[in-house]
This record gives sequence, structure tokens and C-alpha cells, in this order.
Amino acid sequence: MPNALHLDPDRLFPADPRTRDIARMLYAQVQGLPIISPHGHTDPSWFAGNAPFGNAAELLLQPDHYLLRMLYSQGVALEDLGLGGSGADPRPDPRPDPRPDPRPDPREAWRIFARHYYLFRGTPSRIWLDWVFAEVFAQDVRLEAATADLYFDTITAALATEAFRPRALFERFNIEVIATTENPLDSLDHHRAIRDSGWGGRVITAYRPDPVVDPEFEGFARNLVLLSDLTGQDCLSWTGYLTAHRQRRAFFAQMGATSTDHGHPTARTADLPQSEAQALFDRVKGGASSPADAELFRAQMLTEMARMSMEDGLVMQLHPGSFRNHNAQLFAQFGRDVGADIPMPTDYVHALKPLLDRFGNEADFTLILFTLDETAYARELAPLAGHYPCLRLGPAWWFHDSPEGMRRFRRMTTETAGFYNTVGFNDDTRAFLSIPARHDLARRVDCGFLAELVAEHRLEEDEAAQLAQDLACNLARQAYRL
Amino acid sequence: MPNALHLDPDRLFPADPRTRDIARMLYAQVQGLPIISPHGHTDPSWFAGNAPFGNAAELLLQPDHYLLRMLYSQGVALEDLGLGGSGADPRPDPRPDPRPDPRPDPREAWRIFARHYYLFRGTPSRIWLDWVFAEVFAQDVRLEAATADLYFDTITAALATEAFRPRALFERFNIEVIATTENPLDSLDHHRAIRDSGWGGRVITAYRPDPVVDPEFEGFARNLVLLSDLTGQDCLSWTGYLTAHRQRRAFFAQMGATSTDHGHPTARTADLPQSEAQALFDRVKGGASSPADAELFRAQMLTEMARMSMEDGLVMQLHPGSFRNHNAQLFAQFGRDVGADIPMPTDYVHALKPLLDRFGNEADFTLILFTLDETAYARELAPLAGHYPCLRLGPAWWFHDSPEGMRRFRRMTTETAGFYNTVGFNDDTRAFLSIPARHDLARRVDCGFLAELVAEHRLEEDEAAQLAQDLACNLARQAYRL
Amino acid sequence: MPNALHLDPDRLFPADPRTRDIARMLYAQVQGLPIISPHGHTDPSWFAGNAPFGNAAELLLQPDHYLLRMLYSQGVALEDLGLGGSGADPRPDPRPDPRPDPRPDPREAWRIFARHYYLFRGTPSRIWLDWVFAEVFAQDVRLEAATADLYFDTITAALATEAFRPRALFERFNIEVIATTENPLDSLDHHRAIRDSGWGGRVITAYRPDPVVDPEFEGFARNLVLLSDLTGQDCLSWTGYLTAHRQRRAFFAQMGATSTDHGHPTARTADLPQSEAQALFDRVKGGASSPADAELFRAQMLTEMARMSMEDGLVMQLHPGSFRNHNAQLFAQFGRDVGADIPMPTDYVHALKPLLDRFGNEADFTLILFTLDETAYARELAPLAGHYPCLRLGPAWWFHDSPEGMRRFRRMTTETAGFYNTVGFNDDTRAFLSIPARHDLARRVDCGFLAELVAEHRLEEDEAAQLAQDLACNLARQAYRL
Repeated sequence: MPNALHLDPDRLFPADPRTRDIARMLYAQVQGLPIISPHGHTDPSWFAGNAPFGNAAELLLQPDHYLLRMLYSQGVALEDLGLGGSGADPRPDPRPDPRPDPRPDPREAWRIFARHYYLFRGTPSRIWLDWVFAEVFAQDVRLEAATADLYFDTITAALATEAFRPRALFERFNIEVIATTENPLDSLDHHRAIRDSGWGGRVITAYRPDPVVDPEFEGFARNLVLLSDLTGQDCLSWTGYLTAHRQRRAFFAQMGATSTDHGHPTARTADLPQSEAQALFDRVKGGASSPADAELFRAQMLTEMARMSMEDGLVMQLHPGSFRNHNAQLFAQFGRDVGADIPMPTDYVHALKPLLDRFGNEADFTLILFTLDETAYARELAPLAGHYPCLRLGPAWWFHDSPEGMRRFRRMTTETAGFYNTVGFNDDTRAFLSIPARHDLARRVDCGFLAELVAEHRLEEDEAAQLAQDLACNLARQAYRL
Repeated sequence: MPNALHLDPDRLFPADPRTRDIARMLYAQVQGLPIISPHGHTDPSWFAGNAPFGNAAELLLQPDHYLLRMLYSQGVALEDLGLGGSGADPRPDPRPDPRPDPRPDPREAWRIFARHYYLFRGTPSRIWLDWVFAEVFAQDVRLEAATADLYFDTITAALATEAFRPRALFERFNIEVIATTENPLDSLDHHRAIRDSGWGGRVITAYRPDPVVDPEFEGFARNLVLLSDLTGQDCLSWTGYLTAHRQRRAFFAQMGATSTDHGHPTARTADLPQSEAQALFDRVKGGASSPADAELFRAQMLTEMARMSMEDGLVMQLHPGSFRNHNAQLFAQFGRDVGADIPMPTDYVHALKPLLDRFGNEADFTLILFTLDETAYARELAPLAGHYPCLRLGPAWWFHDSPEGMRRFRRMTTETAGFYNTVGFNDDTRAFLSIPARHDLARRVDCGFLAELVAEHRLEEDEAAQLAQDLACNLARQAYRL
Repeated sequence: MPNALHLDPDRLFPADPRTRDIARMLYAQVQGLPIISPHGHTDPSWFAGNAPFGNAAELLLQPDHYLLRMLYSQGVALEDLGLGGSGADPRPDPRPDPRPDPRPDPREAWRIFARHYYLFRGTPSRIWLDWVFAEVFAQDVRLEAATADLYFDTITAALATEAFRPRALFERFNIEVIATTENPLDSLDHHRAIRDSGWGGRVITAYRPDPVVDPEFEGFARNLVLLSDLTGQDCLSWTGYLTAHRQRRAFFAQMGATSTDHGHPTARTADLPQSEAQALFDRVKGGASSPADAELFRAQMLTEMARMSMEDGLVMQLHPGSFRNHNAQLFAQFGRDVGADIPMPTDYVHALKPLLDRFGNEADFTLILFTLDETAYARELAPLAGHYPCLRLGPAWWFHDSPEGMRRFRRMTTETAGFYNTVGFNDDTRAFLSIPARHDLARRVDCGFLAELVAEHRLEEDEAAQLAQDLACNLARQAYRL
């Protein structure tokens, strides 16, 4: 007999009974609030075309780099999970594409996953997936070898029905707004199609210019040519290049964007005189720049983007600190985003100073900071965000988007930055079905943290109730200008 | 009807009932112990002149950089809080002076503060201030927009009475001893006046030589001239300069000082041959040294100070790791200490080696280490203090002087350094009225930590009771030789 | 009347009653499991000769650098504890030897220790020793000045009996296998003697080549000559040197070794072309290499060792990040391992890349990573181990082998690496009598952590029960190929 799958109503709340009571009371007030998803990586074509999703493996396993990395670490071959080996993706689109190869049987891939599901004990993937299994697909037994086929069949059959099409799920999930992420070369045709369709779901884009900002991005030089073609600007001249950015940002804003997003190796910024910036651009635009020039150019572009945000009001997000594609062999075989990105120590206090010296005191400008280096929470990020009017702290990110990670975030930032210099939760995922699970997890953990403050008489109950709602929705709405 | 303000007798104790019982029992034994305040920044003129404090905004808001930083981070202009814009302070006195401008109405500043008081939810400022409001001023409603005037009037009226003069509060607060911090150019006239007054309160000074030790301090070169004038030594010669330090240290010790204090950007020390030190001094004494020379000179001076401590017995304190005045624009407008100091990663293991190679094994020498970089707690500071006879760990400091910060300090230092290589609590504040609140918070958190050890049978109750008293008073008395 | 010594059956379990119940239930299932000790520093001569241990001070105090460091930090002279001052040990054996001087009275040393035993409140040494006192020597009063002689006499008398000889204790402790650590120059005569004795205890060695791999190791050049003598290879030629390693590894494997161990200042690896590696070897082999060459050679040798592990199947362990012998004066007087090693920040993400680029995707190769820099847990180590098939995480190490340290390890690694990329517990100690105490502590802390996951409904009880057994025994057996 298979093991039962059961989502306890008290899951993720602190164990102490009195604290748990408070957490339960707080959570009851935010459980039903709509989902604000201001930063993520869902595919707008889902909502444009509203075609049914495929099978269980294709939807839930193959695009999820959290799952791939863990399975790979324990000796499972990515090929056996249905990933093809077509080499690094040369496209400018930063959205990962592990290119499932149609040949392997998805059922076999799913069985391998099921046999190894025990590996995820204690990880957030387990929590998210169990929620998806139980809440979205009404499973009541645990995923394991014996239930692999049951799961595969049930999920795959459900996905073929109307109720599991993207728009239906969007509505069922009570999503108020969701932001996708596109690069400046994207036509935003899917977003236009969504708008033109008359469907009421709010799906907006965000401006992620890495492929035309980072000289070390695959195809950078070619991307500048494409950007010239798209905008009619001469993007091989510094002024034409900047104008093209302004033009695409305006177009993105028109298609709903309220933010930009920047995924840099470091948080370094620069504020060069324009003549030096121009000379730097001339050195890097061919795509064969030195690492130092590439780094300096990325740094300068963050300040340029801040300047444009001052003009057009787009909120700026910075996601630094990942050593991308650390596993050279895997990158050559499978390309980006298969789980081989590793965080690095990240400096903010020196890195951000040039940008902050220029725009740090502007209350109309917003720069939301993320980190993969938790040592910066209490040491640098909370003190910076607790002082500069332009700065806000993004939630615990990526590897730290988990119960323990979120608790560390709150414990290490709140006392210096307060709650109101943070921006609530964002899910940052392409795993569409897990989005409610992630928001639910965040709400539960935040309610648990607030409950601890109340239980220790560091906060009153009425304040905690207000904060629970602010953390669940209001702060995200405000920070992202939604 | 305004919200009630209520200090729960169990505040800050762990939520688990059995652990809370133990914490309560431990706290009962230390609650009434006198306050030992061996390191802080109160103004000795308060106790010398015993003049009444001014109004609520002037006393509680305008000098408190914790409050200024948070309000500023959320778009409140410092001018609206009553701060004047007279530029960076050229005086050698390291005690901050945000120079309240008499023109703005303090009541208006207070109202702004009250409206934004919710920003401090979850921060130690909230805990300290609520204590001050409830215990010192007998407020029973929460500070918010609706109660702003009530607060302003009540507090301002109270401050005009005899019972709220500095000496009366000193006695009411049960302060056994308090140390202020002065630089070598200070005449210590206020301390002399306190002594001559016949009042029994023990107010001592501490020797903080940064303005004449740090070549990058504003006015360094001029300060050397002032030091020459004051001491009759030729402070533009290396030997005269060192003699002047010895002379001022002796004078400070005569005025009660038992310690020196050093606020350096890093913990770097050096132990140069005297000929090299002299040549270095000749390069930096003009005040236009290179950053590298300035850093090396500060490093060398820590070792010189240690040498003098071996001679005169003054305990040495090192407070490294703050990037001072990170916000260039704000520094230009408002000067030091308005909340724009940001911590940096701080190395101790290499930085301290030259000094430790020279004096590390001297049991008569004491060097108390502080940090803003919590990653050093378990990795460097506890191992160093758990080995070198001269080293002790100062308490969680500045941004980390908070419930979560103190818990991290104990959790990350105790298992390697034990309790007896720490020095108890010090408040490090100029917010005089909050001093009892800070000691109360520290005692509650320490009792909670000890209670957890008892509840997990890692410590016996009689040992915890002894430790609670040691942490509250005895360790500070011993470490600071009070 | 002395204070009672009592080991509470619930010690180290979380205080919350429901969580504690779960922890107790889990612990009951692993309490009696055998001890797997795959990495440690016990002396094989104990088990070869089976001679009785000496007195209490000689067995429990003088070789324990945790005790020495704390006592020294509070002003106790090492000479008074019976340590001789014969200078740094020039022998290649990395096993520390504090050379107790026979002249000081061990009873006097023990009395000093007893008077200072309160210093260890809150440290793991206290927990380990109280277990040894209560469980091994049946003491029922606390160690303190008044009971010093009672302890010394009781323990010393017990040690003279058959039941306290090394093999008897080995059996009493239910040790399934224990690994010692020897360098390539060791004859392994003791291990051979153990095998030849017919005794059933499984004592194996591990290959720790630091003295012939690290050009900065004391006597490195001479050690190469000794290695040549031992192997018949010309170890002053690169190929002869590598062949000698292969030969000694094979011999160690024959004497039971399943692993190698590498104690480097950093985790840096290199993968030079063989011609460059050879030229590098020629520069360092004389023992007077530059620090940069020494570092590069150690880095290259880690990759060479990985290559050999691919051939012979020995599991590789890397223990980086300690600044050895930080106290120059103490090192000159007492030599290695008296408590003056201080951790440093340690990079893994860049440092390991050359080795991982070469062997990271080999599922048959195992590299177990340890750290003294806890900031790497969530930022680098868990992401690396949660991706690369060859990587596993060793348990919380050295200063972090403690209740709080172990909890931080689990909290910061589990969500990204899971449990199954860790290797269970190893005691890493030469304090033989404390080995069961250390495993007991680890099992209790792990059961407490699992109980918290169950109490928060992040894990089911049956899974926690399985995991408790895996963490106690199975993961170590698998990872170390025992």
C-alpha cells in the first residue's frame, strides 16, 4: 500500500503551540489574498495560445533545474530524464530551454524521477511539488516508484482537459498580475496577443537586457546588430545604443512592464564620464572584450539603466552573484540552466557606490536588490536599504527561496531595514503550477516569523496582522508600481 | 481610541513555556543589578552642568542615527526632522553632532516621526523607545499620528522637572559607572567638573585617539599641531608624537579612564621597525598621505597603543569594519553620523597577527574585539579569543545590538570561546534615556539563551544563574578593570 | 557537598514537548547502532599493543587541543598542564604530539583543569567530557576543584584495569570500523600488527600525504628523500614522485584504507599540462619554493590525487581553511596542535573548478568537502554538492562539531543539497574515549533536526526514521566505501 500524501493545515508553522496559534490566525487573513507575481519566468506563449500542457515529465520535471541538479548530483544522466544534448544555446533569450528530446519516453523519465523522489526530503522542491500533486492534481498517495505510473497517467490525463489549460489555471490560482521576463530583442508578440485576445488575465513583461548589455553573453555582437535592425538605431554607436534602449524600454512599458531586471555576475556599478563610457563601448561592442572591460561595461550600464529609470519610472532589479554554467562539460552538452549555476561571494558596499553617489538619494527611483550571498543580509544589504531612499530588498532568492532561507532573510534584515524596506515575495519561477505553492510557503513562513515576534512580545497582534497583509500583497504592489 | 502601550513582563523570552519559566527565573536574579556601562557616547557636559534636557525631538529623535536612517530610507527629508545643513563637521571630536537647526518646529519633527513610527516594527529601536516611553515617561498609549502631540507635550514637560535632569536619571537608572569617549585633544573639563562637584555618580572617560591617529580623519594635520600645543611635545616628530600620546593617556587615566578605543576601517595591525615607523609618520603627518600609507599608519598605531597599554594598563578596544559616510551627498550636507555608515567584510586572522605576534601572549594585556561582520564570529573571532590570552570579545555591536543579533553572537561564539572570553554587555550609545532599555534587552536575551541551554540539558540551572550575573555585570567589571 | 553530575536522557533534544517526543522516538531507533568512524586521529599503536592508558591528565587533558586552547586563553600556562617546551616538531607525521613532559605532576595539572572546568560551560568539550566521566568512569559528581582528586584517582585506577585497555574499550563502544590517519612515510607497522594479532576489531588507515605534498610542510625536501628510500622510486623526478604516491596508496589500500585526506590552507586546485607540472615540481622539490609556487603545487597535487582516486577507488577528503600555528611564539615553544589554528575565509567555487572540470562528472569518483568557513555552506558547498556527481559534504567540522554548529550545517545545506549528498558523521578526533560521546551528540542533534521537520510537517515520520538511520550509519558506510 502506498504512503499517504497529506498537506497538513499547520505545515510550516512554528512548533510551539501558542506561537502556532498566532501564526494560524495571521495566515487565515492572508491565505485567500490574490497572488502578486512581479518577477518570474513563465512563458507568455502559454497565456497567448492557451494550448494544453503536455505530459507530467515535460511540464513538471524537464524544465525544473532544481530537480535536474539534484538528480544529476546522485548520478542520474540528464539524457535519461529526456534532455537532449544539442549544445549551448546561442539564442539571446535568457529564458532557459533544456530542449527536451522527443525520443526518450517521458514515462520512463518520470519513473526515474519517482524512484529518486526521496532525495528531495527536506528541500523546498518537495514542498512545492507535494502541493502541486495534492492541490492541483488531487493525489492522495506519495510519489515513489510504486506510484510513478499512477501519477504520470493522472497528471497527463488532467493536462488534456480544459480545466488545466494555462488561462484556467491562472484564474484558479487567483493571480492578480504576473510578470514574465523578456530581452530587448523579443517582439513581445505573445504579450500583444494576450492583450488583443480580450482575456482578462494581467500578464506583463519585464525588461531584461543582459543579452545586449553583457559583452560576455553568447552572441552579444550579433545581438547589437539585431537590436539595430529592430529599432532603426545604429547600435554600434554609443548614443544610438542608448537610444535603442530607451526605445525598447518605452515599448516594454507600453506592453505593461513596470520593471527592468539585471542578472550580472557582480553588483559592480560605474559612473564614467560619457566620453569614457563611449570609448569603453567601442572596445566591447565587437564582443571580444577583456574580462575587465566587460565587467566595467556591465557596471556602467547599471548606472545608465538607473538614469533611464529616473526618466521612465521603471523599477530596477539587480540579481547578482551567480557563477553561471560552472560545469563546462555540461554546458557544452546541454546549454544553460540545467542546475550548474553556483553562487559567489558578492560585495555591495563598494560595488553600488558609484550608482548610489549618482542616484541614491532620489526617492522616485527604486532599485531592488537580490543576493545569493546571505552574508550580505545583515552586513551590507539591510544597512544599505535601511538608509538609501532608492533601495529596497528583494526576497530570499533562488537557493534561499525556502523555509530556512526565508527565515534567515527575515532574521538578518528586519532589525536594521525593517519590513517596509522589503518588497514582499516574488516566485521567480518558470514552474507555473508551483507558483501558488511558493506564495503559500512564503505566506506561511512570514506568518510564522511574525507569530514569533508576537509570542515574544516584540510586536502587537494588530501590527502583525497588518504586516502579514503587507508582506503578502501590498509591498509588492507598491515597490513594483503595480 | 489609541492603541495601548504595554511592556509585557515576559518580553524577549523564548516562547516555549518551560524555557520561558527558566528564563524568567534567571532574569529575576539580574533584573535589579546595577548598570555597568564601560563603553558609550553620552555627553559628560550633561552630568557636569546637570541642565534640563530640551524637548522630545531634540532629546530622543534628532541625535539618534538609528531613527534618522530609517526615516530617511523611506523618503523623509532630514531637514524636516530638524537637522541643519551646515556641511561636514571639521572638528576633531569624533562624537557626532547632527547640529539641529533651531528654525524647524520640533513639534512638527516629532509628528513626522510619530506618523512613521510603524516603520520600526521588528527593530530594536522600537523596543528601546517603547521602554523609554513606558518606563521613563509613563506613557500607556502607542506612539502614532494620533498621539504625537500628547507624547511631545508630556515628554517635554517632564524634561523640565528636577526628576528628569541628567544626574537624577543617572541615579534612577541605577548606573554604577558610565564611560564616555573623548579624543586626546579634549580638555576633559566636564569630567573634572563632575569630580569637583562632589556628586557621587561615577562618570569616567575613555581615550579615543582616532583624530590624531588616522591620517584620513578630517583635520588630522591640524590636530597634530593642537596636540603639540596641548602637551608641549613636538608632535611632528615621531618620538614627540608618541610621548604626547603617553602623556594624554596618563591624563585620561587620571580622569578615570580604564580603556582606549579605536574605530578603524579595518582590523589591520603592523609591527614595523621603529625607523620605518618614523619614516611612515613623516610621510603621513602632513595629512596628504596615500591611502596605503594611511592604512599602514593606523595599523602601526594599534601596535603602539598596545605597547602603551602594556605600560599603563589601559584596556584596548578595537571597533573596525565600518565604511563611514558612504553617502557622499549626505555627508557634504549634514556631516558625520546621520546613519550612512555601512559595514564591510572584516578580516581578523591576518590583520591582527603582527600585533598578536608581539603582545598576544601577554596575560596582563587586554584587547577587546568588536565586529560588524558576523561571519567572523564563529570563523575567526571565537577561535582567536578562545586561544590568545590577551583577547576578549566585545558584545554584538551597532546593527547587531538587537535580539536576533545578540542571539547570533551567543550561538556563534559560545561553543568555541566560551562565555568567559566575552565581556558582557555595553550599550555604546549616546541615547542616554535608552541605556536601561538596552541593558534590560541584553539581560533578557542572555537569560533566554541560557534558559535554552538549561532546557536542552547543556547547562545546569545553578551554572546558568551564575552566568546570568557574570554576563550582566561581572565580566564587564573584570574586562574593563572597573 | 559537590554538585551532581547527571546525563539527562533528553539532552540536546529541542525543548518544545511535541518536537522532543518525536526526537526521542527517532533517537531510540539509532541510539544502539554501531559506530562508523571513517575519519579520525586515534593512534593505531593503542590497538596494536593494547597497553593500558596512563593517568587522567595524560589521557584526557594533555592531548586535547580544545582543552589546551581554552585554558591558555584564560592565562593558564601550558607548562603547568604538563606540556614540555621542546620546540616545533620536525617529524613528517601530521599527528600532533604535544610531548607531555614527565616532570610536572599530572595530578597538579588535573587540579588546574578541574578548577577551570567552568570555562567550558556551553562548549562541546563539556558535553563530551561529562559523557566520558559519567558513562565510561561512572562519576556522579561534577568535576570542580573539590572533586579533582577523586576524579584523578578514580580514572587513573580504572585505566590500569583490563576493562579500560584500548581493545576492550573499542568493543565496549560498539565500534564497527575506525580509520586512523597516516602519512606516506609511515610503515603502517601498527596496522599490520593489529591484523596479525587475530583481534577482530576493524582498524584501518587513511592516506594523508601532506608532508610529501605541501612544499611548506616542515622537512618537505627531506621527506622526499625518505619517500625515495621507502619506495625505491626517484622522488626528485616528477614521474618517480607520482609513481611513489601510487605505490604507497596501493600499500595503504592493502592495509584497509578506503580514503585519502588532504589538509590544505585553501581548496585551490589546478590542472596544469604535465610539462608545467613537472617544471613546477622541479622548482618546489628543494623545499625553498615561493609561497605562490607552493600553493600552485598543492593545487596541482589535488588534481593528481583525484586522478589516482579514479584509478584505485580511494575516496578523497579535503579539509581546507585553517591558518596553522597562528601563534608564532607558541609554535616555537610547543610545536603543532596546541590550539593555535585559526580558520580563514575559504573559496570553493573558483578553487575547485580546475579539478571539477577534469573529474567533476565522474560518478565513480568521490570527493568529500569539509569547511571551517560556514558562510560557504549555503552559498557554495550545498549548491556544488547538489549538482556535481563526485561531490559530497563532510559533516560540521572541528570548531563547528558542536550542537549549534551541526544545526547550522543542517539548516544551511539540506534545502539545496538534501541529506543524501552528505556523508553522515565523523568524529575527527584523537580523544578515543570521547568518540561515543561525539557520535551520540551528532545522533541527538540530527534526530532533533529531523523532529523539527516532522513537527512542522516538512517531513513524514517514516521518512525521518529512515533518515535517522542513514545519517547515523548508512551514509558513512556508502560514502567511504566501508
